[in-house]
Amino acid sequence: MNEPRREGVPTISTSTLGEARFRSPLVQRWDPAHVVGRFVADNHFVRFGADVKLGEANEAPLFEKAGARRRIFFDPAKTRAALVTCGGLSPGLNNVIRSAFLELHKNYGVPEVLGIRFGYQGLNPAEGERSIKLSMEIVEDIHQEGGTLLGTSRGPQDPAVMVDYLRDQRIDMLFCIGGDGTQRGAHALAEEVARRRLPIAIVGIPKTIDNDIEYCDRSFGFTTAVAEAERVIACAHVEAKGARYGIGLVKLMGREAGFIAAAATVASQEVNFTLIPEIPFRLDGDRGLLEALHRRMIERQHAIIVVAEGAGQDLFAPRETGRDASGNIKFQDIGPFLRQKILEFFDQRGPKVDVKYIDPSYVIRSVPANAEDDILCDQFARRAVHAAMAGKTDLMIGHMAGTFVHVPLAMAIGRKRRVQVEGEFWASVLAATGQPAVFA
Amino acid sequence: MNEPRREGVPTISTSTLGEARFRSPLVQRWDPAHVVGRFVADNHFVRFGADVKLGEANEAPLFEKAGARRRIFFDPAKTRAALVTCGGLSPGLNNVIRSAFLELHKNYGVPEVLGIRFGYQGLNPAEGERSIKLSMEIVEDIHQEGGTLLGTSRGPQDPAVMVDYLRDQRIDMLFCIGGDGTQRGAHALAEEVARRRLPIAIVGIPKTIDNDIEYCDRSFGFTTAVAEAERVIACAHVEAKGARYGIGLVKLMGREAGFIAAAATVASQEVNFTLIPEIPFRLDGDRGLLEALHRRMIERQHAIIVVAEGAGQDLFAPRETGRDASGNIKFQDIGPFLRQKILEFFDQRGPKVDVKYIDPSYVIRSVPANAEDDILCDQFARRAVHAAMAGKTDLMIGHMAGTFVHVPLAMAIGRKRRVQVEGEFWASVLAATGQPAVFA
Amino acid sequence: MNEPRREGVPTISTSTLGEARFRSPLVQRWDPAHVVGRFVADNHFVRFGADVKLGEANEAPLFEKAGARRRIFFDPAKTRAALVTCGGLSPGLNNVIRSAFLELHKNYGVPEVLGIRFGYQGLNPAEGERSIKLSMEIVEDIHQEGGTLLGTSRGPQDPAVMVDYLRDQRIDMLFCIGGDGTQRGAHALAEEVARRRLPIAIVGIPKTIDNDIEYCDRSFGFTTAVAEAERVIACAHVEAKGARYGIGLVKLMGREAGFIAAAATVASQEVNFTLIPEIPFRLDGDRGLLEALHRRMIERQHAIIVVAEGAGQDLFAPRETGRDASGNIKFQDIGPFLRQKILEFFDQRGPKVDVKYIDPSYVIRSVPANAEDDILCDQFARRAVHAAMAGKTDLMIGHMAGTFVHVPLAMAIGRKRRVQVEGEFWASVLAATGQPAVFA
Amino acid sequence: MNEPRREGVPTISTSTLGEARFRSPLVQRWDPAHVVGRFVADNHFVRFGADVKLGEANEAPLFEKAGARRRIFFDPAKTRAALVTCGGLSPGLNNVIRSAFLELHKNYGVPEVLGIRFGYQGLNPAEGERSIKLSMEIVEDIHQEGGTLLGTSRGPQDPAVMVDYLRDQRIDMLFCIGGDGTQRGAHALAEEVARRRLPIAIVGIPKTIDNDIEYCDRSFGFTTAVAEAERVIACAHVEAKGARYGIGLVKLMGREAGFIAAAATVASQEVNFTLIPEIPFRLDGDRGLLEALHRRMIERQHAIIVVAEGAGQDLFAPRETGRDASGNIKFQDIGPFLRQKILEFFDQRGPKVDVKYIDPSYVIRSVPANAEDDILCDQFARRAVHAAMAGKTDLMIGHMAGTFVHVPLAMAIGRKRRVQVEGEFWASVLAATGQPAVFA
Repeated sequence: MNEPRREGVPTISTSTLGEARFRSPLVQRWDPAHVVGRFVADNHFVRFGADVKLGEANEAPLFEKAGARRRIFFDPAKTRAALVTCGGLSPGLNNVIRSAFLELHKNYGVPEVLGIRFGYQGLNPAEGERSIKLSMEIVEDIHQEGGTLLGTSRGPQDPAVMVDYLRDQRIDMLFCIGGDGTQRGAHALAEEVARRRLPIAIVGIPKTIDNDIEYCDRSFGFTTAVAEAERVIACAHVEAKGARYGIGLVKLMGREAGFIAAAATVASQEVNFTLIPEIPFRLDGDRGLLEALHRRMIERQHAIIVVAEGAGQDLFAPRETGRDASGNIKFQDIGPFLRQKILEFFDQRGPKVDVKYIDPSYVIRSVPANAEDDILCDQFARRAVHAAMAGKTDLMIGHMAGTFVHVPLAMAIGRKRRVQVEGEFWASVLAATGQPAVFA
Repeated sequence: MNEPRREGVPTISTSTLGEARFRSPLVQRWDPAHVVGRFVADNHFVRFGADVKLGEANEAPLFEKAGARRRIFFDPAKTRAALVTCGGLSPGLNNVIRSAFLELHKNYGVPEVLGIRFGYQGLNPAEGERSIKLSMEIVEDIHQEGGTLLGTSRGPQDPAVMVDYLRDQRIDMLFCIGGDGTQRGAHALAEEVARRRLPIAIVGIPKTIDNDIEYCDRSFGFTTAVAEAERVIACAHVEAKGARYGIGLVKLMGREAGFIAAAATVASQEVNFTLIPEIPFRLDGDRGLLEALHRRMIERQHAIIVVAEGAGQDLFAPRETGRDASGNIKFQDIGPFLRQKILEFFDQRGPKVDVKYIDPSYVIRSVPANAEDDILCDQFARRAVHAAMAGKTDLMIGHMAGTFVHVPLAMAIGRKRRVQVEGEFWASVLAATGQPAVFA
Repeated sequence: MNEPRREGVPTISTSTLGEARFRSPLVQRWDPAHVVGRFVADNHFVRFGADVKLGEANEAPLFEKAGARRRIFFDPAKTRAALVTCGGLSPGLNNVIRSAFLELHKNYGVPEVLGIRFGYQGLNPAEGERSIKLSMEIVEDIHQEGGTLLGTSRGPQDPAVMVDYLRDQRIDMLFCIGGDGTQRGAHALAEEVARRRLPIAIVGIPKTIDNDIEYCDRSFGFTTAVAEAERVIACAHVEAKGARYGIGLVKLMGREAGFIAAAATVASQEVNFTLIPEIPFRLDGDRGLLEALHRRMIERQHAIIVVAEGAGQDLFAPRETGRDASGNIKFQDIGPFLRQKILEFFDQRGPKVDVKYIDPSYVIRSVPANAEDDILCDQFARRAVHAAMAGKTDLMIGHMAGTFVHVPLAMAIGRKRRVQVEGEFWASVLAATGQPAVFA
Repeated sequence: MNEPRREGVPTISTSTLGEARFRSPLVQRWDPAHVVGRFVADNHFVRFGADVKLGEANEAPLFEKAGARRRIFFDPAKTRAALVTCGGLSPGLNNVIRSAFLELHKNYGVPEVLGIRFGYQGLNPAEGERSIKLSMEIVEDIHQEGGTLLGTSRGPQDPAVMVDYLRDQRIDMLFCIGGDGTQRGAHALAEEVARRRLPIAIVGIPKTIDNDIEYCDRSFGFTTAVAEAERVIACAHVEAKGARYGIGLVKLMGREAGFIAAAATVASQEVNFTLIPEIPFRLDGDRGLLEALHRRMIERQHAIIVVAEGAGQDLFAPRETGRDASGNIKFQDIGPFLRQKILEFFDQRGPKVDVKYIDPSYVIRSVPANAEDDILCDQFARRAVHAAMAGKTDLMIGHMAGTFVHVPLAMAIGRKRRVQVEGEFWASVLAATGQPAVFA
């Protein structure tokens, strides 16, 4: 079979724990006459992007397609699964927990599914947080609520301690729902498991409200957060128009990637200036932000600015501000800084402006998932279960080209998606705002 | 007629510009056979509160009932009206503008209705803001948007200058939509108008998101703001439950009256501590807030605190912080202060807590009015028009005992409603939170 | 003491089971120094309406003020309470259940509160539905959900059978949450209880999405239903404007009273014709609905009609259509009838119109309560508990003049509120629609 | 280099009007140093699906990538564009109109953009509907409203008449926003234009709330409609649980494809039976729907059924029911039919059930677009403008593998997407409902 060569690109398969010895109970459940397409065959891959430039080499790798396998590694009746949620909240965590539980328990027949409390801390017995045994009663309505039933926390724990716990609790598979740090932790867990040759599957489900995990172009919760952000921008717009020379200034999440700010801008179509971490900007000078804002105010008497929290960090005097529990650098607060700079500028130049600053903070991430994210969460969760039941490990469920794949954790971690400032979507932002491509 | 004596209470009638010379065009419009109850008769009053304590004197005064009069002072075809919105935004301003315009223009047949721009500044020609001539096209969809089409601003203007403007523009009636400061300005305008013996009606429509204007127990926008606040509290609840020893801390509007905080607490039923300006509280000591919070955290591992912006101002070291353009004292920021105190306390006492602070700021006031406020705005606006057309002046539309009245401006200003901390509604807050009656 | 005479109106007190022997535990709970106003004194009444017409006799009766009493009849520690929900759903039922449970259990210390399943059927052992013992866990999140945790059903049961059940289950107080039929059933229960001289309190909480129970001018769920109805009208408006000669036709709840249709019209301000049961209308003739609609279509090319389900029943050929389980007459379906008549008329007269008919049916009543109703439910529920604990019985909590009262059940039942077609609120509808006062 | 051959699949390029003679004004607007990726090169294609089965031939064709071209065919300053919306409403039509106008007018500098009224009727002068000249003022807020500013209608017009109109009005490009019938009409227009060798670009933008247009896996408005449908299902769930043996029955849009029913089911996770046109079902017999429903009722006492309007049409006695103005076969009403069959079945078999039937009809399509659809509309609209400006014609903007393409109209029409009943997404429906794969 010479297909991979013809494709000329790497074919990325994930680690497996061993031979898939059992027939999936889904074969029984799904009427055998109708299941041709519902199981994924071993030769089924997905290209990382469907774009083709004729005459140019296409080096997009092929990832293993996610989905149910006909044969599985674990005997469902003897399997014990566990779920853990880590890092900041994102809309849809409870949906993921619920769908993973239902797929494990009702569809595969796994008798016991544990919910680990408060992130990786719950895998460290020294922290004293006992896990919950999930049940139909517990999960029944949780998909209608924001947050996570299990609680969450930031920061790593010792992989050896956690693997001890998994072994002691006879947990066969662990689903790690979280961002880059969490997936890094999941990879460390999987390596430790492999070192000890334990038959434990570690499967990551990417959770990033900033939508910045590589090989996952749609993360759950993102579209809900964008909808909330659009709502806040609408408020800022109302405030700006209601005041004489009103300026609405909204700070949104986005530490290193400006996806929420960019998407909320395109959704809203009311923003005049969108500032993201990917594009440094100057405040002063003829082509700086403040002069552009001045021109807008003279012309239209009001303006809306959206700034991602990670934008403009170079405008601050350098200083070490420490790191949070996840090891992230603590950012300076660009919102009040910008507000102050704008007030100072217009105090001098005139006219007198009224800056309405809104920092919605947790509000955009604590709401329940919307319908779109409800569906996405269900898709991620059930595919994660399929992967683990098939004995696949050390992987994360990814999303690309409109479908779901298995991404080896070692590939996923440490690489972050950024808004492509020379790409199409950012062009939509420029079209929507009318702002110049750079403030330089 | 000896009725007033029998009531034994003051009967409060409003100033009028003179004889009601014209038959209301509404008599024609409303089928004459069916209008008995739609017009308000001159002997129709409303008692300030329907409570009666048998055996005790009932001194609740009687206010003139608001509503359409059969005979009116102004000839609609020759009338020119104007509307002005002042102070901070409140949901429903555009509904009020629209309904007042429609009642004036379509129902009474007033040919020209002006919208004054940016509050009382728009009545001072030196500010250079020209008024808008309102039309069906302009107002058509505005009730679906938050904010005010006319713009707003804070602060007074010289009554003499404003009356000059009204006279020069041949404006016969001015509707002043705003809070205590605005009604104060309206009263100054009415006094100046009276001094000059001009036939100009000045009618106030109370706008107070804090719901703290006396003789107006339901102000428009309040219930919408409470609904938004409830939404934010739900987010804080989700955050608090999602973190290990999580504390959700929400700051809400309410400078001198805690109605939003109290109502959002009862609506939400998720709050554990509600702090309002009417009740001073101590942080320290056995019966202080921090110890009570500690007990809650030990017992339930999470907590929600709602604090009105005007609460706990005595906890700050005294200093003069100046006044804003409306003359209001600038408050110290209780939210971050409380957050800091809580963190310090638990750093010492343990356990380590995670405080999620949310300050929704303008978000709760910039949203469009909900259905309840849509209706309320329409009621206020049309009654204000009826009052002005009837030649009544120097009054504000009030609301009491489920209905609308005329309140002389001199009575309304300078008296503010407060949450009755010994009353029924605050008892609902205590029942909902389970908090002690005082932290002393 | 000559006060009642001076008032010259009946003072309506409710039945009580006997002497209030116990001090309320709320005295302890509420700091004694601060509870002056939180308890209601025995001489505290509320006038049915605060309107006063000078020179005319004011015959509005005085109702007992609802609220906590200092002394109570039942010993909380030995009390067993039960709740039952009957009739159609209304937003807020779960809030009422939750607040009643919390007030009973947490504030008064009542150890056991039962939830009766599926209305009065649950009080008839022959139906085989066992009651639920309510707990904090069960009620924790129910206020965020529409419907009723307990289930509901229509129709009466034999009072003797139900009182047997109450006695056998040692239930001391029963809260009957439902509409006119339910309160009628509650009164029958109370009479049977009185006949047997049992110390069981029967307290009604009015639930009427149509807002048509007498002595209760604000029923919970109504404002939520109006908000939903407004949303549907907005859809009909969009459909009507999107089609060539588009007519949006919306049928809303309202069998005998058009409050939802009227309030949604005023909230929406987009309706052109509102048809309610209180005002018969003619389709044909120069002053009939169809000609008026024709004029509107020629002038503006689109129109919105809102029709309450009970409107225009006289337009159908008389026939007996039977009654539902609650004994209500089954109505003919005015929506499709009107749609057909409009199509036939314009087929003849031209232009060709496009009628978009929407019947939201259950959607407006199954949604969760909004913030306004959240608060209202809490107020009704806690006052019902206060009444029962004080030993009051055979009453319903009413609402008038902005506050809550005790209404003897015998007064409340069989009298229904109607839209006052000659009153102020209907005038708002006429102002909003511009429709003629009658189609005759 | 022989890349196309290596791909071994058809490379689908669209028709063009001629040489791209002008430099795009976007080159100027976008800072030249930063525009590398914002323009699409001529060799840029997108594979129809990124799935690859190793060892199997991959015959997915390559479609031209949509997006801005560096060189364009029309001189913007001399261009006149027109937009037309046809068929039923879908959330987002106004967003598409607005973004297309803004891209044409503000970004390309096209001086005049016409809005054709009421679908293709507006291109037939005999209908007497004049087009609107779009402006910033007109489009400013329309994206916040459902429906279409331009109005819409069903049914074709004579292509020759329409092309005469385009020529007479000197329209250079027409954007046809609509479903399969509309795109069929657009293709007929393009063919007539080509026959006459006129330099007029015809570009389709697919609008299908049913999401059933081939080569367009995400149509705008779909996710908003699903969110509304989920909301209605939640109401049905509340109703079903609130009644004794309650069955919630919801009819949703979906004539030939059950995407809305399927997606709303996965989003809601509360549905027990989802019936779509793609899968015939039997009512009777051991494996029929009614017995399965009976089992569910015995086990859980309530159930939710979602039925797409086109499902179960074979259950009706055959009869010709005619076609609507778009030529679609009129369907029998499956909702009331099913309701009746269920009632009859349980009347015989017991227990007595209570069926709550909801037909939300237009409500799910008349709401404003949500944030996700706001963004999608903007992407479709601006890409359609780029295509037309580049002189491309007889095409529709498609969506596949997460990106946008040009699809020749001849390929797009007459082929409809269906829910793949043997595919992954339907497996999610089966997982969510627990229903058997077939009722046979």
